[in-house]
Amino acid sequence: MKKNITQVQTLLEALPYIKKYSNEIFVIKYGGSAQINPILKDKFAQDIVLMYLVGIRPVIVHGGGNKISSMLEKLQIGTKFVDGFRVTDEAVMEVVEMVLAGNINKEITTLLNEHGTKAIGITGKDAGFLKAKAKNKEKYGLVGDIIGIDSSVVKNLIAEKFIPVIAPIASGEDIGHPGYNINADLAASKIAEGLKARKIIFMTDTLGVLDKDKNLIDTLREDEIVKLKEDGTIAGGMIPKVDACLEAINGGVRKAHIIDGRVEHALLLEAFTSDGVGTVIKK
Amino acid sequence: MKKNITQVQTLLEALPYIKKYSNEIFVIKYGGSAQINPILKDKFAQDIVLMYLVGIRPVIVHGGGNKISSMLEKLQIGTKFVDGFRVTDEAVMEVVEMVLAGNINKEITTLLNEHGTKAIGITGKDAGFLKAKAKNKEKYGLVGDIIGIDSSVVKNLIAEKFIPVIAPIASGEDIGHPGYNINADLAASKIAEGLKARKIIFMTDTLGVLDKDKNLIDTLREDEIVKLKEDGTIAGGMIPKVDACLEAINGGVRKAHIIDGRVEHALLLEAFTSDGVGTVIKK
Amino acid sequence: MKKNITQVQTLLEALPYIKKYSNEIFVIKYGGSAQINPILKDKFAQDIVLMYLVGIRPVIVHGGGNKISSMLEKLQIGTKFVDGFRVTDEAVMEVVEMVLAGNINKEITTLLNEHGTKAIGITGKDAGFLKAKAKNKEKYGLVGDIIGIDSSVVKNLIAEKFIPVIAPIASGEDIGHPGYNINADLAASKIAEGLKARKIIFMTDTLGVLDKDKNLIDTLREDEIVKLKEDGTIAGGMIPKVDACLEAINGGVRKAHIIDGRVEHALLLEAFTSDGVGTVIKK
Amino acid sequence: MKKNITQVQTLLEALPYIKKYSNEIFVIKYGGSAQINPILKDKFAQDIVLMYLVGIRPVIVHGGGNKISSMLEKLQIGTKFVDGFRVTDEAVMEVVEMVLAGNINKEITTLLNEHGTKAIGITGKDAGFLKAKAKNKEKYGLVGDIIGIDSSVVKNLIAEKFIPVIAPIASGEDIGHPGYNINADLAASKIAEGLKARKIIFMTDTLGVLDKDKNLIDTLREDEIVKLKEDGTIAGGMIPKVDACLEAINGGVRKAHIIDGRVEHALLLEAFTSDGVGTVIKK
Amino acid sequence: MKKNITQVQTLLEALPYIKKYSNEIFVIKYGGSAQINPILKDKFAQDIVLMYLVGIRPVIVHGGGNKISSMLEKLQIGTKFVDGFRVTDEAVMEVVEMVLAGNINKEITTLLNEHGTKAIGITGKDAGFLKAKAKNKEKYGLVGDIIGIDSSVVKNLIAEKFIPVIAPIASGEDIGHPGYNINADLAASKIAEGLKARKIIFMTDTLGVLDKDKNLIDTLREDEIVKLKEDGTIAGGMIPKVDACLEAINGGVRKAHIIDGRVEHALLLEAFTSDGVGTVIKK
Amino acid sequence: MKKNITQVQTLLEALPYIKKYSNEIFVIKYGGSAQINPILKDKFAQDIVLMYLVGIRPVIVHGGGNKISSMLEKLQIGTKFVDGFRVTDEAVMEVVEMVLAGNINKEITTLLNEHGTKAIGITGKDAGFLKAKAKNKEKYGLVGDIIGIDSSVVKNLIAEKFIPVIAPIASGEDIGHPGYNINADLAASKIAEGLKARKIIFMTDTLGVLDKDKNLIDTLREDEIVKLKEDGTIAGGMIPKVDACLEAINGGVRKAHIIDGRVEHALLLEAFTSDGVGTVIKK
Repeated sequence: MKKNITQVQTLLEALPYIKKYSNEIFVIKYGGSAQINPILKDKFAQDIVLMYLVGIRPVIVHGGGNKISSMLEKLQIGTKFVDGFRVTDEAVMEVVEMVLAGNINKEITTLLNEHGTKAIGITGKDAGFLKAKAKNKEKYGLVGDIIGIDSSVVKNLIAEKFIPVIAPIASGEDIGHPGYNINADLAASKIAEGLKARKIIFMTDTLGVLDKDKNLIDTLREDEIVKLKEDGTIAGGMIPKVDACLEAINGGVRKAHIIDGRVEHALLLEAFTSDGVGTVIKK
Repeated sequence: MKKNITQVQTLLEALPYIKKYSNEIFVIKYGGSAQINPILKDKFAQDIVLMYLVGIRPVIVHGGGNKISSMLEKLQIGTKFVDGFRVTDEAVMEVVEMVLAGNINKEITTLLNEHGTKAIGITGKDAGFLKAKAKNKEKYGLVGDIIGIDSSVVKNLIAEKFIPVIAPIASGEDIGHPGYNINADLAASKIAEGLKARKIIFMTDTLGVLDKDKNLIDTLREDEIVKLKEDGTIAGGMIPKVDACLEAINGGVRKAHIIDGRVEHALLLEAFTSDGVGTVIKK
Repeated sequence: MKKNITQVQTLLEALPYIKKYSNEIFVIKYGGSAQINPILKDKFAQDIVLMYLVGIRPVIVHGGGNKISSMLEKLQIGTKFVDGFRVTDEAVMEVVEMVLAGNINKEITTLLNEHGTKAIGITGKDAGFLKAKAKNKEKYGLVGDIIGIDSSVVKNLIAEKFIPVIAPIASGEDIGHPGYNINADLAASKIAEGLKARKIIFMTDTLGVLDKDKNLIDTLREDEIVKLKEDGTIAGGMIPKVDACLEAINGGVRKAHIIDGRVEHALLLEAFTSDGVGTVIKK
Repeated sequence: MKKNITQVQTLLEALPYIKKYSNEIFVIKYGGSAQINPILKDKFAQDIVLMYLVGIRPVIVHGGGNKISSMLEKLQIGTKFVDGFRVTDEAVMEVVEMVLAGNINKEITTLLNEHGTKAIGITGKDAGFLKAKAKNKEKYGLVGDIIGIDSSVVKNLIAEKFIPVIAPIASGEDIGHPGYNINADLAASKIAEGLKARKIIFMTDTLGVLDKDKNLIDTLREDEIVKLKEDGTIAGGMIPKVDACLEAINGGVRKAHIIDGRVEHALLLEAFTSDGVGTVIKK
Repeated sequence: MKKNITQVQTLLEALPYIKKYSNEIFVIKYGGSAQINPILKDKFAQDIVLMYLVGIRPVIVHGGGNKISSMLEKLQIGTKFVDGFRVTDEAVMEVVEMVLAGNINKEITTLLNEHGTKAIGITGKDAGFLKAKAKNKEKYGLVGDIIGIDSSVVKNLIAEKFIPVIAPIASGEDIGHPGYNINADLAASKIAEGLKARKIIFMTDTLGVLDKDKNLIDTLREDEIVKLKEDGTIAGGMIPKVDACLEAINGGVRKAHIIDGRVEHALLLEAFTSDGVGTVIKK
Repeated sequence: MKKNITQVQTLLEALPYIKKYSNEIFVIKYGGSAQINPILKDKFAQDIVLMYLVGIRPVIVHGGGNKISSMLEKLQIGTKFVDGFRVTDEAVMEVVEMVLAGNINKEITTLLNEHGTKAIGITGKDAGFLKAKAKNKEKYGLVGDIIGIDSSVVKNLIAEKFIPVIAPIASGEDIGHPGYNINADLAASKIAEGLKARKIIFMTDTLGVLDKDKNLIDTLREDEIVKLKEDGTIAGGMIPKVDACLEAINGGVRKAHIIDGRVEHALLLEAFTSDGVGTVIKK
């Protein structure tokens, strides 16, 4: 009985959050350990189902770095990275799409459906959802920047009670174009903007944004980020994450979160508890 | 952090219940200490709000015994009880209605609205919702049995996102009739039947149904109840409760619960934890 | 046959009014003899039903002065009036609410339902409909001024084909507040504004607004009212009535009527005949 | 004032009828003096508008005997009648259709629209509404019996708030067929059946069905009609009328009325007064 | 097989047009040989059905010159033309309406329905669709200019999947007015404007607009038309046609076409082939 | 001009088919040369777009034999075929899914979208669409038989105007199951049954079903098929095709077609011309 009472107490602490987020879209960039570790995967799925049932409208965007590299290796297709982007020729692109849309996307979709939702996996090529152009064809090949988004595609799926799971591939401008490989973080930002999401949450393998003394920074605003980038506190792989956050925030999303996906139930901790986890970036 | 993780763990234990009860009507007979004790009242309101937000459609039916007696006393109107029914003449009826509809009903409605819902208080006289006839005019006066229910009234309110709070007063058959005083438990049963509710929950000041050794009985079926009534284990005020439960169950409600309203958050414990509280009566 | 022909002739004289008022909201402040005299009550109900059936959307607001005083007396709770307002402490407030919501409101609702409508009785506490603050806490106690109105509550009820009957009680700003006692005339005005009503009709026990020679004034505009108040022609209890009319008119209601509720079928006479009854106040 | 009170009294006597007929379809066979006399025409239009505004759904079916004959004469096209049917060759048919659809139908439509409705004139050829076959090609030529009715056509018009005015012309079975001339009484019966009308009302130039002593018979049933036809009391032009009534009644229409269209406001007298006018035929 | 392949090839050439015109309104002024020649009539009907099935929303407006003249002659009613308008007194007006609404309109409606559509014939008098005033009462009598259009009438019919077929008759301003005779070309223009049609197509018995050397001009703009009228290249009966086109174009219709209705399937040739037929007038 | 006239003629020959198939679902098993040859692919896409625009609701099911084999080879994963089924272990299954869902499915989706539709690619794992069990785990591994189909998934997509493109992968019964590889022909049959499709069309690299003299058989019924299988006329790879056809036909699909996908526009030839191509199998 005692246990049950604690249980109920906890449910009630979530009440204000449930009220606040009812019918709001959360775009979740899924990645890192949460996508690999079987226990974390299961927790992630539970989190999404709970969010869905209490009225949040989750939209999942995923990447797939390691699996792509390993498949390229198995197929003996060489690639290299320039400025952090995988240089993508047509052979690489085919593997990127195959792994993202045919393996990782279906794995996530299946995972969610096994937990009782109706998740549906799409890429930006489906129903003309995402259009892109080359970021720099000479340097990176088929790495693209999103130039068009038809958010009605995702809204129609939400209207039919589906949870959309999106692989960051976009169509090109020309007939017969092999499509573009989009950075998953930036794709998530653009999609969150297009859907006027309430929150965007990046699941990472870091605590969040750290200060000089390696302590977690709870909250950041644009001007603070500018300074931290200038003095080198925000550096390396964290730069594209905070840039994606700023992109979303400036595009109308209310809050962007960089959270530690290595923590079990990081999503629920962020959404339904008073402390939250990781760093929140606000306007 | 630790606390938060426990918190989230608990949320997830509620998941199967949330799934199961999504969009289902629960009729809750509100009464006893839960209606008097300020702390329990507040917990009750929280429970209803949470239920509402996670997709349950609660309908509240209330009585008002003590307040009616005290108002009758203040007004120096004598009443007596026969067979457990308050003998109700027109003067008593006026006070019954005034206290139920004008005091208790509005108190509950306000309580719920202060917690963030859109509760609306009605009686069976509103919009022709409940029709009754005298149970036994000579013996009990204006004590009525429900003979007609227009459940579209409550369904229309639910459709407009209101939480209905119902005082157990019914219209009579004739023009100008002062109406009938209905036993709140039986009113709740009839309303649950009419709405094809998933559950009916009676909030009482007992542990539930007890066996001969005064231990709580978890689960009961009709045949067992018949026996326990015969051998006197179920006796006194518990008889109308179990009868109301059987009425509901036989009318198509899936489960009827007699729970201990003196326990904080008894409703959530019943709805969202594995043990439940009190006695459940099933077909 | 002759009789029938006259009958039909009369129906047709109502035709232009039926056309004009189809689907328009009329807020009717119900009170005075029309609320007490059994014959007048019956006529009132017939009028509302006819209005409803030919397409008008009536909304009833009622007060309850005498019954409140008599109940206070029976309960030996003293009250006094200051500036025409009943000084309202918590004990008085409880009686006000009980009598308005639990007695008078249900009486009117039942009366209308017995004539074949689906009337539903609410107060401003239901579903957060009316919010108020103290007019002057020191002088009048819990007498309130409406500061917020959620007209969707009444519109949702109208959408479900209910006729709303409203008792002039409002919620307070704080959790646990006993609520406010609102002047029924002013409540009616505010509600008419909030609903963008076509007409507001005050049923009184006077002929309407009288001139110096005690003759009825047919029509009045704001500037004329100002003058008549200055020279004392409009005085006493008529002042709050005309002020409530002006409030409504200035808030977008097309016409405000002060009619003689002692006349049988005063509402229909006003709505459907060429002469009208009482005084109309226009922009 | 006195006049106004009588007026209102009368309105209220119509109340039970308004309640009873709300949203019910009345098929009205318009004809005789009511279609010719300018005063009666005006009254007819007023009646239809009032019916429409208080919630009845009128559907008008008209004939056009005299005008057709006079146009045939002007055009020097001879016709003769066999068994009461106008023998209709293609030249006659063209005139029948032209006069019914292009003259009389538009006159009625315009008349109603001038009184404030949205009447729309159609024939059975529009949207495949009525299909017919020859009654007896050798004897009567293009006189038809209705063999198919697509009542969705009229229901769609009613759904869009139009009042349908129908000329009794039907399509034939073959491509290029000139169509059929249908007896207006029988067309009205069939349409009333197809629409599951509440009432069908035949406006005639008689008092109704008369007994042997030439007194009006109020009410008739099928067996009585059979007898009256056998003994010759019902004879001549009254036979097809009562047959059309029986057809409708046996097809599910609740009541069929033969009324005296020479009486001003005969329709309202029938629909909204206690006595009614003419003869009613019931199951 | 070979034939079939060509067939399919052709279907595909229509694809871009089908895409472009999906759900767009085309107002078609039907007239000339296409309305008289049995083969052309049949082709016209096929064209309309095909247009309808592939998603175009056709609205037909027709005139009826020859048939009106011949009926006037048969009835020995004299008329004359002034400035190209038929001087229309009440006797003429009655014939105009009878022939247009009762003969030609029903002929077209039947023709289309025989090919499988749900065409419904109306005039501007139905449901208050078109209001007109006299162009010049002294000179032309009841020849009218459209001064009001309630396009909801036609839109409601389209919403119910009907194809509207419109005779160019309009109501007058006064009660009892016989109505106005409207030039069919101008009626079509006004209706196209009111419906925000994509195209207006005039079916004529000319190749289109010809230049000085009697060669067809493909495309014209307003300034070019002004010049061609000044230098007399556009003259006679072509002037009102191009004026109607300009009226439509300036009222928001995208393209106006003057096509040769003597060519079989002229409508489909215009709508679905690369060349088009006749002259197109654009903004 | 001549060419245009032929063009239009052809459009009209398609009219009866367009009428017949309006709003009907066609399940198309896409495969063979039509999926490989760039010219045939383009024609296929044109055919689907045209079908969609004229009102057919196409649903595409595809396989991917060769690409799967070639990818398995590149990855040096050996497989063998038993009884015509690819023996599928988990390593093979991963490649099957990756190629089908991540490569072929997206290629088809993109192809269609480039031609102007909103195609969306899914597998049976999305939203719990297809459930399967092992056909014979020992012999074929993860080759599955469909045991459950939630056709609301596809219907919801059609309701939102998407064209579904389906890869024949199904979920397994247990959590964490890698899923099943389904024969594309049988998947198409089951999906057609579930959707109550009008037609199922198998695009093959044969003329259709051939008789003993290698001439095409136009039409077949079940009893004829039984005989032809017995006498060996239907043999080899044609057996599963005709079995899939019979499955569909017996499950309520009206007609099943085995057509020659090597012919350009085979789909349109089948759907919109009088001859059709290949063999039709009817009940």
